Amino acid sequence: MTKGRFITVEGAEGVGKSTNISLIEEIVRENGHNVLITREPGGTTTGERIRDILLDKEAQELTAMTELLLMFAARTQHVSQIIEPALDEGTWVVCDRFTDSSYAYQGGGREMGADLISQLEVFALGQFRPDLTILLDVDVSTGLERATRDVQADRFESEQVIFFERVRSAFLARAQGDRYRVVDAGASLVQVQAHIREVMDEFIAKS
Amino acid sequence: MTKGRFITVEGAEGVGKSTNISLIEEIVRENGHNVLITREPGGTTTGERIRDILLDKEAQELTAMTELLLMFAARTQHVSQIIEPALDEGTWVVCDRFTDSSYAYQGGGREMGADLISQLEVFALGQFRPDLTILLDVDVSTGLERATRDVQADRFESEQVIFFERVRSAFLARAQGDRYRVVDAGASLVQVQAHIREVMDEFIAKS
Repeated sequence: MTKGRFITVEGAEGVGKSTNISLIEEIVRENGHNVLITREPGGTTTGERIRDILLDKEAQELTAMTELLLMFAARTQHVSQIIEPALDEGTWVVCDRFTDSSYAYQGGGREMGADLISQLEVFALGQFRPDLTILLDVDVSTGLERATRDVQADRFESEQVIFFERVRSAFLARAQGDRYRVVDAGASLVQVQAHIREVMDEFIAKS
Repeated sequence: MTKGRFITVEGAEGVGKSTNISLIEEIVRENGHNVLITREPGGTTTGERIRDILLDKEAQELTAMTELLLMFAARTQHVSQIIEPALDEGTWVVCDRFTDSSYAYQGGGREMGADLISQLEVFALGQFRPDLTILLDVDVSTGLERATRDVQADRFESEQVIFFERVRSAFLARAQGDRYRVVDAGASLVQVQAHIREVMDEFIAKS
């Protein structure tokens, strides 16, 4: 059986990941593949418990290094328990955030730098990487306004604008790589979804 | 102000760490130092939440890599938030388990090997190491019998004897280093405590 493909959807707060992940799911299904939608941090029972620690607004004392190690702890569990077994069965996996978010939030936002994240990525994941990463990009003020409109901000969403500027820059720097496609999430929903369909059609044609 | 000294107490299940840590605390106080007793995994609010995940008997699916990253996540938080600030104030810190337990349980018990633990140690802690490590050593069957006599076994204590044999071997291999003192915890309490007093007197004389 052909292995499934691993697609990650990245971007800062308020870029519309959830809506667009539903579209990606639909496109993959239309092409006859089983698809699993999952998210980080989380994705497993242990991962969701780690997520609770990471997003807890009361945990103000959490150091950048602890945050980074917790992210990767949730990630390795997620890969071993959920993502790799699904791919091995031929299921396509679409994940809301993955290692690029560590490059963006801990590497960029917390200013730990890309080298440190890269070291831990190799340590924890070996050569396991997504096949396609769709980066939804929007300017910081629009994103934050969308993200916090209706809900209480979590520990990350409570950061300052300058933090999210660094997150966005780090995402865009990562997206220079081959497996990335940047989608302007500031455009209208119709335009964004047309762009995503185009990206997915190209990817599926090559798969 | 002189910095405090960092003493770790290591050993497998049932070696009598708690009783002997109380003695170490008493000896350090007799010598006129403030002393803080703490433990791993745990030691901070976040660390205790991580500890709950690690010791949860229901979390059978936890991979060795996730376990290792969680241990170091709890550890970096503990060092930054509790241990280093205390040492900087001149307080001596006595910690029930530290990185040597990762060498023993994940490196030895889970057979990840010492090299991998060493890489993560340098990554997460830089050059931060204990000043003295007292390894309480006892044969596996005695230790396990003591550890599980009165209480429900946790996720680690539910492992097989062969696992604890590997843990013990890894501890003893570590204890070749300069900062280690091995105490035979299979001896009588009076003998064990006399030995610990001797080790502490020697260490304090040099401090």
